[in-house]
Parts: sequence; C-alpha cells; structure tokens
Amino acid sequence: MELVTIDDIRTAARQVAGHVVRTPLLEASWGDPDRPLWVKPESLQPIGAFKVRGAFNAIGALIAGSDPVSGVVAYSSGNHAQAVAYAAAIYGLPAHIVMPEETPAVKIDATRRHGARVVLCAAGQREIVAEQVAAETGAVMIPPFDHPGVIAGQGTIGLEIAEDLPEVRSVFVPVSGGGLASGIGTAIKALCPRAVVIGVEPELAADTAEGLAQGRRVDWPITDRNRTIADGLRSQPSELTFAHLQNVLDEIVTVSEAEIRSGVRELAFRARLVAEPSGAVALAGYRKVAAPAGPAVVILSGGNVAPEMLGQILSG
Amino acid sequence: MELVTIDDIRTAARQVAGHVVRTPLLEASWGDPDRPLWVKPESLQPIGAFKVRGAFNAIGALIAGSDPVSGVVAYSSGNHAQAVAYAAAIYGLPAHIVMPEETPAVKIDATRRHGARVVLCAAGQREIVAEQVAAETGAVMIPPFDHPGVIAGQGTIGLEIAEDLPEVRSVFVPVSGGGLASGIGTAIKALCPRAVVIGVEPELAADTAEGLAQGRRVDWPITDRNRTIADGLRSQPSELTFAHLQNVLDEIVTVSEAEIRSGVRELAFRARLVAEPSGAVALAGYRKVAAPAGPAVVILSGGNVAPEMLGQILSG
Repeated sequence: MELVTIDDIRTAARQVAGHVVRTPLLEASWGDPDRPLWVKPESLQPIGAFKVRGAFNAIGALIAGSDPVSGVVAYSSGNHAQAVAYAAAIYGLPAHIVMPEETPAVKIDATRRHGARVVLCAAGQREIVAEQVAAETGAVMIPPFDHPGVIAGQGTIGLEIAEDLPEVRSVFVPVSGGGLASGIGTAIKALCPRAVVIGVEPELAADTAEGLAQGRRVDWPITDRNRTIADGLRSQPSELTFAHLQNVLDEIVTVSEAEIRSGVRELAFRARLVAEPSGAVALAGYRKVAAPAGPAVVILSGGNVAPEMLGQILSG
Repeated sequence: MELVTIDDIRTAARQVAGHVVRTPLLEASWGDPDRPLWVKPESLQPIGAFKVRGAFNAIGALIAGSDPVSGVVAYSSGNHAQAVAYAAAIYGLPAHIVMPEETPAVKIDATRRHGARVVLCAAGQREIVAEQVAAETGAVMIPPFDHPGVIAGQGTIGLEIAEDLPEVRSVFVPVSGGGLASGIGTAIKALCPRAVVIGVEPELAADTAEGLAQGRRVDWPITDRNRTIADGLRSQPSELTFAHLQNVLDEIVTVSEAEIRSGVRELAFRARLVAEPSGAVALAGYRKVAAPAGPAVVILSGGNVAPEMLGQILSG
C-alpha cells in the first residue's frame, strides 16, 4: 500500500495556504515542568476544526487536475461536512452533503449556510446514499479520512509544528478514522525523528488501541463507540489509515470520559479556548501518560460543541 | 504633550518579538454581510491578555537602557499584574506587585506563581504603596497605561492588523485607561488612514465617552465604575492617554451589560474563544453601531474569567 509522504504534505501546504489559518503554537505555562506544554488550536480554523485542511487539499487537487469537476459529495454529520461545504463554496463548486435524519438541526442549518445541498438519509445509509448522489450528479466523493489527499492536508499541522518547535519531543493526537494522526505522524517522523507520536482514544471507542495491539484492524459495534461524549472520535480507521498508524504511532493511550471532560475545562479556563470533547482528548492523554521529558504538543482538533453541553461540562 | 508615534510602535514590535504571540487575525463567518468581521484574539497571549505587549516593551526598554535595573513594581489586581510578573520573570528581574487585600486568592496565587513578590494593601492605597515599594527597593514603576512604552507595546496589535488586513475599514477597541486604544489607534491612523477607530466602553463606566464629548477628562466615582461586569474596564484615562484618544478615536460607543454578556456567548459559541467580559466589549460595539461597509476588526482583549462567572454567562 502506498503511504502519504512528506513531499505530499509539503505540496498540500502550498495548496491550503491562504485558505486555512496558520494556527499559532501556544505555550501553556500550566504543563508539567519537565514536559513543557504547547497547544495547537485547530479550533481557530474556519468551521472550527482541522478538517478544512484535508478538504481544501483534496478539493484543490481535484480542481487542479485535468478532469472537469462538476461538484463534490461528502457524508458526515460533523466537522467534515462543514469543511467540505465551506471549501467547495470558496472554490465555487456545488457540494452535496449526505447527513443522517437524526442530525441536529443546527448542524444541518450550518451546512446549508455554506451553500451546500443537504441530502438526508436513514441512519447507517450515509455511505450508500452518498455513492448514489455521486453517480447521479457526477460529483466526486471526498471521504472524511480514507483518502491520501485528506491525510496529506491534515499532515500540514505536523509541518507547522516542526517549523515552530523543531525540538518537540512528543506530539499527542486524537485518533478516530485516523486521518489526522496519519498525516501529523508522517510529518513529525520525517522532520523531528526524535519526537514520539502518541495517539489518544476514548476508552469507550478504543478500537484502534485494540487493533494496534493485535496488529490488525478490529471492529467495535457502532453502538459501543457511540457511548463516548467525544462524538468526533466514533469512527474507525480504514486500511489506508491503519497502515499509516502502524507506521507512525509510537504509542496509543486511552482516556476516560471524566478525563475528557476535565480536559475541556482545563482548555477553557487555562488556555481560554473552547474545545469540543473530541478536541480535549489529546490533552487528556498528555495528563495520563509519562511521555519523554522535553516539549510536548497537544492537538486541539476542534471546538464545535453545543452550548448546553459546554455549559454543563464547564460547571461540572 | 509628546504622543507615541508609529516609529515608537515599530521599535516596540522588535522589542516584544519572540516574547508575545503573533496572534492570528481570525475571519468570522458570522458578521454582517457588508462588514465582514475579523477577531484579533489577544486572549491567546501568555497570561491571557494583551497586557504582555506593553509589559515586555516597557521592561525591555528599561533593561536596554544605560541605568542598572534592580527590579520592577506594578499595582494592579488584574491582567497588568500578571503581565509585569510574567515579563519580569522572563527577563530575570525581581517584580513587586501591589494588590488590594480583597483581590481574589486565585489572582494572588497566579502572580506568585510567576515568581513575583505580592504586597497587599488597603483598597484605594495601591498607588501610594507602590510608590513606597519603589522608593524602598529602587525598583522601577511600570504603570498599567500612563506610559509611552506601554502604549507603544499595545500599539503592536495595530501594526499586525495593518499587516494582515491592510484594507480594514473599522477597528473596535475597548477603552478603560486608554493604553490599548491609544496604541492601536496610533498604528491604524498611520498605516490605514481610511479606517475608522471606534472605542467601546460599558455604559456603566462611560467616563471617556462623556469626557471626549466635553473635550476634557471627567471623573466618575469608582463606585459607579465598579458596577460593570467588565472588571478590566473600570479605570480612567490619564492626561497622556486622553490626549491620544482625542487624536485617534473617530467615535466612542457605549454598550449595556446584557450586550457584553451576549458578546461573551457569541465569542464562545461562534469563535470558540473564551473572553472575559472586558474582552467581549469590542464585539458588542460592533453589533451596536453602523460602522462603514468593509472589513471590521474587533479586539478580543483578554480571556481571564472566573469559572463560575463564565458558566453563568454561557448558560444565560
């Protein structure tokens, strides 16, 4: 299987420049003394999550290609839907976003506000319906993680970390479908070979931790994975991302729901950043394991959290 | 009276580089269509507020000067205290911070954590006690706003706005002692002459709005100013900052307590940024007045808010 390379990620950086925020690496005075803590706040991206990087890279590469592009399709109820809708609008392409009927109205509205057409479907039918939409409209599918261009786009985060903090010793990344960790891990391994890359998963959706231990992908029922509050981390790696994770992760740790909530509070009160639960998982991992002494970076992957849930977590 | 110039601000930018965060200018998709909104998140600075810029510039210039410096003194219960303590620690200088006895323990602890000596005093005695400490120790006073080096340091924010968004048409800045608005206004007037600079004050501490209307400083009793939830905006300009404000502000608007709270919520849920009430006042001003069509920037000045207050505002 062909893996994404550091050159792919460098190309992606040129592709997404000007479209995504070059997020600052923020030094946190409240880390462990021997592991100075830095936060990479991808919550500051347009649409509030790192997903715009992969979307701009994949769609940008499509447009730059030789085939005419009539539109894009994505299936997602979360940040990937917003990212594809947003990037398509900037590039002037029609976007069709397939979402389950039970998606909260606020997310459907947000997607429509970017000019996308929303196609509602029954739960569990997203992928099939998206394939149908692609076949009917000729639009090209932009998958949330199982795509080299998406992985390379997310990898630009690793490139920026290497530029801003070349002496980094550990990088904590949340793991779900694995696109983010695959991309960042590839960049860090190429540019900062002394650094360890540590994946972090919720205990309640720890299929990848189990899979890496067994040396093969394992399947957890979606009803199990749905138990975690970290609703952005309920997917499972594809063959492509799993191969990357085997290659670039030095370790994977799991964190409890209470640890995730505590991470959201710490980010709000000490870093003054709003994180969705999935976005606080990397910090929870940093708090949990003894990584090597030296500078540590945690990825704050996104900040889209319902007001009621945020209020409830912060008062907890 | 000699006012701070754009050259002073350029010098300050060199002085503070590497010590403060070059904050990104974040495009917000949720502004008015004819006035695209951008947020300058100074809450991402170390200590969570713009005050580090003035502190690093003033203390850096002291150290670069010909006289030996034995330490610095500041009086403040808020962000300026943290900023001076933080900057002094980085420069390896002793810091003496004078705080009223009723200062919340959490702020006293935070100041001590930066290695500063905290001197408690009776309410209303801060300035006198700070003068005494300076006389006894030989340390140099770093005032919160009545100081050209502090004004020039805060002005580096304006320099960055002009670099990132030269076509800016309006800049909204909170006004209290006036150091921030003086510095930013000076930079914007020099570099983006088409832009209007709009000061924003809480209605409950609107001494500067009244003073500018009358053409002279007016004094509001501190018991009146203390009514606003925006606890960083309870000071009044000095002669030096008032002269700058007369020069650089095109307009000053006042906002209600409800509008400030609504700004905190909007920043948390739409920009994913934690703002203290003072930090949301500029956005409240943007929502209130009809500024010229074209790109608008609001300064999010700081994000230090007690957990209970934040929880209460977000659930409101």
